[in-house]
Amino acid sequence: MQNFFWHNPTALLFGKDTVKDLAAHLKADNVKSVLLVYGGKGIFKSGAYAQVTEMLTQNKISFPEVNDVKPNPLINKVREGVARVKAGGIDAIMPIGGGSVFDTAKAIAAGSCYSGDVWDFFEKKASISKAMPIYGILTASASSSEVNNIAVVSNPDSELKTSITSPFIYPKVSVIDPSFQITLPEKQTIYGGVDIIAHILERVLDGDEGSDLIDEQGYALIRTMMRVIPDLLENPKDYDLRSEYAMAGAMAHNGFLSMGRETRGDFSSHRMGHSISLLFGAAHGASLSVIMPAWARYMSEDNPVPFARLGEAVFDIYDGSDEDKAADAIDALEDFFKDIKAPTTLRELGIKEDDIQKLADNASRGETFGVLGKLEPEDVLEIYRLAY
Amino acid sequence: MQNFFWHNPTALLFGKDTVKDLAAHLKADNVKSVLLVYGGKGIFKSGAYAQVTEMLTQNKISFPEVNDVKPNPLINKVREGVARVKAGGIDAIMPIGGGSVFDTAKAIAAGSCYSGDVWDFFEKKASISKAMPIYGILTASASSSEVNNIAVVSNPDSELKTSITSPFIYPKVSVIDPSFQITLPEKQTIYGGVDIIAHILERVLDGDEGSDLIDEQGYALIRTMMRVIPDLLENPKDYDLRSEYAMAGAMAHNGFLSMGRETRGDFSSHRMGHSISLLFGAAHGASLSVIMPAWARYMSEDNPVPFARLGEAVFDIYDGSDEDKAADAIDALEDFFKDIKAPTTLRELGIKEDDIQKLADNASRGETFGVLGKLEPEDVLEIYRLAY
Repeated sequence: MQNFFWHNPTALLFGKDTVKDLAAHLKADNVKSVLLVYGGKGIFKSGAYAQVTEMLTQNKISFPEVNDVKPNPLINKVREGVARVKAGGIDAIMPIGGGSVFDTAKAIAAGSCYSGDVWDFFEKKASISKAMPIYGILTASASSSEVNNIAVVSNPDSELKTSITSPFIYPKVSVIDPSFQITLPEKQTIYGGVDIIAHILERVLDGDEGSDLIDEQGYALIRTMMRVIPDLLENPKDYDLRSEYAMAGAMAHNGFLSMGRETRGDFSSHRMGHSISLLFGAAHGASLSVIMPAWARYMSEDNPVPFARLGEAVFDIYDGSDEDKAADAIDALEDFFKDIKAPTTLRELGIKEDDIQKLADNASRGETFGVLGKLEPEDVLEIYRLAY
Repeated sequence: MQNFFWHNPTALLFGKDTVKDLAAHLKADNVKSVLLVYGGKGIFKSGAYAQVTEMLTQNKISFPEVNDVKPNPLINKVREGVARVKAGGIDAIMPIGGGSVFDTAKAIAAGSCYSGDVWDFFEKKASISKAMPIYGILTASASSSEVNNIAVVSNPDSELKTSITSPFIYPKVSVIDPSFQITLPEKQTIYGGVDIIAHILERVLDGDEGSDLIDEQGYALIRTMMRVIPDLLENPKDYDLRSEYAMAGAMAHNGFLSMGRETRGDFSSHRMGHSISLLFGAAHGASLSVIMPAWARYMSEDNPVPFARLGEAVFDIYDGSDEDKAADAIDALEDFFKDIKAPTTLRELGIKEDDIQKLADNASRGETFGVLGKLEPEDVLEIYRLAY
């Protein structure tokens, strides 16, 4: 097991009606004004917006807004928020939404304490040394953004969807009230679930042989998600299922499953998925259900072992060689994605065969990446072809 | 799933030679003098004392000492530490040791900021509102004290072994270097392992039916421990096994496995075990391997389900009714304890049949306790009889 440093300072208010418990934290920290950050109409439908603004009003906290944050959020929206904070009078950032909204809020929090353009952080031209405090309300689980120090933002001008990571952008307090997720569109339950499973798979499939304990935690979490998602599609209003989904969503990518791993995980599928979202507007989760089985088939040719272990631990596949188990495990994973009505081919996303080279170029950017195996540009092209 | 609040602020330095990384944290917090708290000669044998004092000396941090902390630590040692801190010139508390040493340090940290006698906290006559910062070095995993907000201390005068819990006593930074545990006596590896397993069992066996996700994490962690302990007894110097043991030890009782549970767990076995340690000086882990199977057999008569689920998930027991599975699971648990040479009867601890009433009186103290089922004094007596 490798050395690691762990410090996740985010306080979590989990459960029904916990928005009102946020008031005590805001009061203790003397917050008088927050910048509300949100997306579209979902938070009106779920009641989250009403609950949050009622709590703020009762506590005499003002709340100027930046709204209309899109899925796969854009740097221009971040810039809009930064400008608003720099105009003065804001004590904290308050996202109400899912990962895109939290990511936008984190980038605003960091950009507001920086004299240059916030995109500098994403291009690694500057590093974050300070950020506004973040008090967030989660309304859609998927990215773990509510409990981690990562923000993913897209810049259409440079055709780049990329991330920042900094200890300064952990939310100070996050509210996870699973009842806000009961009104989510079915597609979001599916795609969020795929994203959560992908975050776990990207750890347990990284080839690190010294992380059995964490692998076993990860396998258990995947089994939980594979039980919960189909049940939720049948019973979308089930609060306990929404709770399990939300908790798995928070655990999958908060750093816990990277503890002691040599490389913290292999996020090649996320990188290749980001290109699909950026260039063709695909939902993040849809890009992952398409790319992960293709990546897995390509990688398992030289490295069947992690896929065979996954087969045993998650799909009860015990027969045959490691190669056989790996192939069966990947088929089972793809079948699961199909069962929950997630796409598994680029064609289903409306992408043409002629577009594959463009995807590969965008993902590679002339670089080699990957942990389980290093992916040269020609490997990336081949994986997109397999996903077609 | 029940509502919960989670905020575990402890920063963790995990791995080989991470003591030296503590220096940056002490420097950032302007610590010039620490009260070293430790037990006996173990930390000289493992090299922990030498590494820590070298780091402190190099960084010009002074380190007066309170030592000779015993297993099942005593309130008088806490008072000695409090007196030393109140004498002045100490910025922080630095335990080097296992759970007993960390627990003592936590009680010193709280008692030093209180004008009355520190035992008041344990008798719930006063509540903790402040504590000195704690920077700890773990040398024996078992209690999760290095990453939680609990301290268990004994008072022979009042024949009471009991605990305090407060957000103020989380260590600020804990170092977990598994290599310090390579020189532990075999008994400590066994008893620490039993304690870790008990902390997990006390969650998954509490009868809460709304915590499947966390139960699944707990089952996985028990399987890990049941793989790691026998392997460690064969290969006590294996660093990766020590790492898994240390990480499981930190996860079992840091609050994670209580998330969303109705009652946070059923700690009846710990309470009954504490009486065995207090009155007869038994090692904490030995008291648990004796009491847990007896408690389980007694409880499973009316509540076989949690024990049957444990049988399926941990011992691959799928045949028969829930009653059959529960009985087989408890037999398998007891057999595991026997296999790792942990005692499973009071007789093995040298306790006489005549002492059973005294144990029952000490554990009950005229109260009813328990979560899976309420234990009246006569139930407690019967469980000790079963353990005889």
